[in-house]
Amino acid sequence: MVFLDRPLILVTNDDGITAPGIRFLIQAMNELGDVVVVAPNSPQSGMGHAVTVNNTLFVEPVSIDEGPQIEYSCSGTPADCVKLAVNELLNKTPDLCVSGINHGSNSSINVIYSGTMSAAVEGGIEGIPSIGFSLRNHSWNAEFKHLLPYVKKIAQQVLDNGLPNGVVLNVNMPVSKDKTFKGVKVCRQARAYWKEEFDKRVNPHGREYYWLTGTFVNMDKGEDTDEWALANNYISVVPVQFDLTAHHFLDDLNQWEIDK
Amino acid sequence: MVFLDRPLILVTNDDGITAPGIRFLIQAMNELGDVVVVAPNSPQSGMGHAVTVNNTLFVEPVSIDEGPQIEYSCSGTPADCVKLAVNELLNKTPDLCVSGINHGSNSSINVIYSGTMSAAVEGGIEGIPSIGFSLRNHSWNAEFKHLLPYVKKIAQQVLDNGLPNGVVLNVNMPVSKDKTFKGVKVCRQARAYWKEEFDKRVNPHGREYYWLTGTFVNMDKGEDTDEWALANNYISVVPVQFDLTAHHFLDDLNQWEIDK
Repeated sequence: MVFLDRPLILVTNDDGITAPGIRFLIQAMNELGDVVVVAPNSPQSGMGHAVTVNNTLFVEPVSIDEGPQIEYSCSGTPADCVKLAVNELLNKTPDLCVSGINHGSNSSINVIYSGTMSAAVEGGIEGIPSIGFSLRNHSWNAEFKHLLPYVKKIAQQVLDNGLPNGVVLNVNMPVSKDKTFKGVKVCRQARAYWKEEFDKRVNPHGREYYWLTGTFVNMDKGEDTDEWALANNYISVVPVQFDLTAHHFLDDLNQWEIDK
Repeated sequence: MVFLDRPLILVTNDDGITAPGIRFLIQAMNELGDVVVVAPNSPQSGMGHAVTVNNTLFVEPVSIDEGPQIEYSCSGTPADCVKLAVNELLNKTPDLCVSGINHGSNSSINVIYSGTMSAAVEGGIEGIPSIGFSLRNHSWNAEFKHLLPYVKKIAQQVLDNGLPNGVVLNVNMPVSKDKTFKGVKVCRQARAYWKEEFDKRVNPHGREYYWLTGTFVNMDKGEDTDEWALANNYISVVPVQFDLTAHHFLDDLNQWEIDK
């Protein structure tokens, strides 16, 4: 592989390498740099930050549609794809890692469950400025074209400015009927959770099983949150960290009689 | 189920319901409260915060060894187990959720990949004071007995004091030759990463595949970190949060020309 002065951009996702969201993202990134795609060969939604430690990983070069990008399909998770790209497939560290565009929101607490964001976080851990992009629309037929200037602008800003160590961006985009947005808003993650409901059924052999379903409960009405931004037709950008230490609780915890 | 005044304690793990680590933890928790176990029927290491959205979940009551605990074996991930327990199997919210004892460390960046910690974080999201316990020893024959007073003390402190919203505890225990520790130390997560190496092989059918391996690289020599504590024979306790917002970067990010 020969790379000239253009930035090297690694593209991945969790919906699988043939998903319309990543196909769009690849085309957008082709306008900004030299693109290498390493993405799962099948959907990986809800995989969180899973890595494949007890199974083999298969990787193969593929050609899916037009464009100068180089593509690999991988049997692993989104985090596996980033690890493989950085440590095995690429001969230099990418200047940018983008994941998505996810078919469905990864705002608020969804960041925890998101394969899309786990890939971006893995990029961050590897020292690469990284962004996860998600569209608040699960449909495989969702429209992406009107997102192009926003996706390019945010990616270009990260290429130009870099990101601090330990920080990646979580970008979520609302569904807009007229395909315009009020703008892009820097936000914090809204406090929310999923109120699960388990749909209990009986299989043809008489054995009970469950499907996980649920409703999203937003407990946080702050106008500085991603949920507020999305509900008000802004694209939300949340800086996400992977130092999970609750620094604000260290002093209190030190007061506990925690020794045996 | 009838619960008297004793606290209700949910126990889970990611090594599977028959792992020695969870069997020990169940016996320890039996001394503190009424125990319900909902744990994976097979090992789930490296699953991160995966949840099962595209597959069915099977749950069945099991009886594995002596004791008053009630146990369920589940086909899902550690996070699934907690969701199922809280939303389907239990008639009240547990007073405490403990996950582990993991066979292997979940200190530093491992918190991101850890199924053990994902169960504790899921407990925290559900509003339950939660702790993940891990022993820095992968062996299935690791000794746990000498950990009893520490595990009980930390769990009792969480029962007595509660935890702030949005905070769970990540407890890691070093291997100690003489089975004593210098004490229990409240810490922050050390900045570290895995330097991956992919072991490339060829299968009997001529197809290349990889095994993920790697070495742990600690970039952070701070004496207030979990890695320092463990290396110096302390049990480490890191308060972990699941608001991933990098609050310290919000102001800088707001200066970017991020609109299209």
